[in-house]
Amino acid sequence: MKAAQFFGQKDVRVVDVPKPEPKDNEALIDIEWCGICGSDLHEYIVGPMTVPSKERPHAITGESLPTTLGHEFCGRIVSAPTGLNLSPGQAVMVDPRIYCGNCPRCTASTTHGCQKLGFKGYSGTGGGFSEAVAIDAKLCYPLPDAVDIRLAALIEPLAVAWHAIGLCKFADWSVKSVLILGGGPVGIAHIVVLRAKGCRKIYVSEPTAARAEHDKRLADQVFNPIKEDIVARCRELTDGEGVDTVFDCAGMQKALDVGMDALKFKGLYMNVAAWETPMVVPFARLLMNEITLKATLAYDDKDFKETVDAFVEGKFKGLEDMVTSRIYIDDITTKGFEELLNNKNQHIKIMVTTHKDKL
Amino acid sequence: MKAAQFFGQKDVRVVDVPKPEPKDNEALIDIEWCGICGSDLHEYIVGPMTVPSKERPHAITGESLPTTLGHEFCGRIVSAPTGLNLSPGQAVMVDPRIYCGNCPRCTASTTHGCQKLGFKGYSGTGGGFSEAVAIDAKLCYPLPDAVDIRLAALIEPLAVAWHAIGLCKFADWSVKSVLILGGGPVGIAHIVVLRAKGCRKIYVSEPTAARAEHDKRLADQVFNPIKEDIVARCRELTDGEGVDTVFDCAGMQKALDVGMDALKFKGLYMNVAAWETPMVVPFARLLMNEITLKATLAYDDKDFKETVDAFVEGKFKGLEDMVTSRIYIDDITTKGFEELLNNKNQHIKIMVTTHKDKL
Repeated sequence: MKAAQFFGQKDVRVVDVPKPEPKDNEALIDIEWCGICGSDLHEYIVGPMTVPSKERPHAITGESLPTTLGHEFCGRIVSAPTGLNLSPGQAVMVDPRIYCGNCPRCTASTTHGCQKLGFKGYSGTGGGFSEAVAIDAKLCYPLPDAVDIRLAALIEPLAVAWHAIGLCKFADWSVKSVLILGGGPVGIAHIVVLRAKGCRKIYVSEPTAARAEHDKRLADQVFNPIKEDIVARCRELTDGEGVDTVFDCAGMQKALDVGMDALKFKGLYMNVAAWETPMVVPFARLLMNEITLKATLAYDDKDFKETVDAFVEGKFKGLEDMVTSRIYIDDITTKGFEELLNNKNQHIKIMVTTHKDKL
Repeated sequence: MKAAQFFGQKDVRVVDVPKPEPKDNEALIDIEWCGICGSDLHEYIVGPMTVPSKERPHAITGESLPTTLGHEFCGRIVSAPTGLNLSPGQAVMVDPRIYCGNCPRCTASTTHGCQKLGFKGYSGTGGGFSEAVAIDAKLCYPLPDAVDIRLAALIEPLAVAWHAIGLCKFADWSVKSVLILGGGPVGIAHIVVLRAKGCRKIYVSEPTAARAEHDKRLADQVFNPIKEDIVARCRELTDGEGVDTVFDCAGMQKALDVGMDALKFKGLYMNVAAWETPMVVPFARLLMNEITLKATLAYDDKDFKETVDAFVEGKFKGLEDMVTSRIYIDDITTKGFEELLNNKNQHIKIMVTTHKDKL
């Protein structure tokens, strides 16, 4: 079958690989759509980072590059163990995580902290940029016919936001104000989830016109960090106090400095971004405002389930606009990775399929 | 009266100043003991930092340098408004903070976040390195005769630790493990308060032999960061998981890197130290372990009261050993600041008095 595999920096090839053979506990999934994630692009540009190298095969799968990419994927059941409501043809969203299930973190229901954590789409045993995948049936979430399977792969990035937002431990988002640094795909996922959770003060800092245009449809305010004094704007909108929370979906020092200044006393700075430069904390601001800085990692089983449920219940608004291109797997390098590299700001999410008829 | 005032870098002079005249709401205190704080020393070396400069007088007091130093002080009532249990001769510990009382933070009972926050001993209206001070009577905490007033000034640094430890929001310290980076006066205050709160796994990283010797009397384990693998030691002592919390009382990058590595999954890094270099957060560690980084600022009214109560109830063990020298105010530069500068590691706390007979 076809699979897009990562061989090295800027070297993703669509190759022919054997069709996976499911084990007793596994479902075989016919993949319909798989989104290209910012971290896939990151891997394409500077990898192998998350994909295991020959020298360090993955601790659970034992595999190393080339591995099949793509971890934001949905599809339909081909075969599955019985008794799980997974009949052939059933649409499913897949939790792509690979964890050991035995370590103290896994047994404490914090599977996202598994010290061997991996993902289908990075760590071996297949991935979403292919025709099919075999995966533990308990990681497959059935989707009712009424939902749009063409958008279901977005559940994965939404689960990342769901987890980050949950980590804030706020009981009532309707009384909280938020500044999101970076209105790209990750920032937008946060807007969508925050809105679903009732937040009514969502401000976004986004420097590019194309993305800002998109953000404006979803957020309450979109600021241009090049032209506007974001700290002053946030204070104006929050009775002079600053925002309750910043979600850093940018990973840039300048943005962090602004975000820290925009926070209220005892505010929460949640880092979602992957940083490529050192992350320097403005100590005086941290101290004088008793700020809390947290980082968020993926999602756990509960987050994923809750995100699927919210998707099925139609709680996420504006998802249609998030998909800016749909491409065939053979074009994944030119119309996928290279397109994102050259025209990143024109895109939110590019969806890939092996089903030409579904384009 | 005599007062030790800060005139500039390495320029502290004992000068004659007018005796303060208390306002209607103020008590006049005959100061008995005042401790030299690390931040006083910091001011002596690189100030004016906290002391207001001529160009930026303090927002509440309107004063600028020279101001009287010393914010860790206790004494006896000379005069006070009636009805407050503050008769002449009554021993009192003093909360040295200056806050406006009207801003949103003050009215929200977070007076330590007052945007005009100042301290007796930095910001004007007197300080503890003098014969007397006039201060809002509600900031005076009566001490019963049974307690040792020679140790009472330690309540102030203990309140700093009390606040930082409270910010962790742990209900039961008896099941928590702690690594303290830096076993100097601030680190020791944390050991003492943690012990009072029932913590039974207190590990300290301290490179100097003199301080380590002192720490060993109070902590469960004292590590030498130059000779030992602290991360490995912490893991050994915590079933391989790492400590629940790090208190950074060092403010050095190398220590931070080690502290972050020594934390368990979802651990808490509490910064208490003042940093003189940029604080670089090891992003990958923060992310993979979903670490929370917090900073702590002084203490609020509740913290101060609770610390006084715990002191009075005898809950703090080992305070006697914390005072390594008692000096007369005339010697504050030579036997105080310069002594700390040259022999810092030999000292925990130097206490200053204007009462020669009490030495």
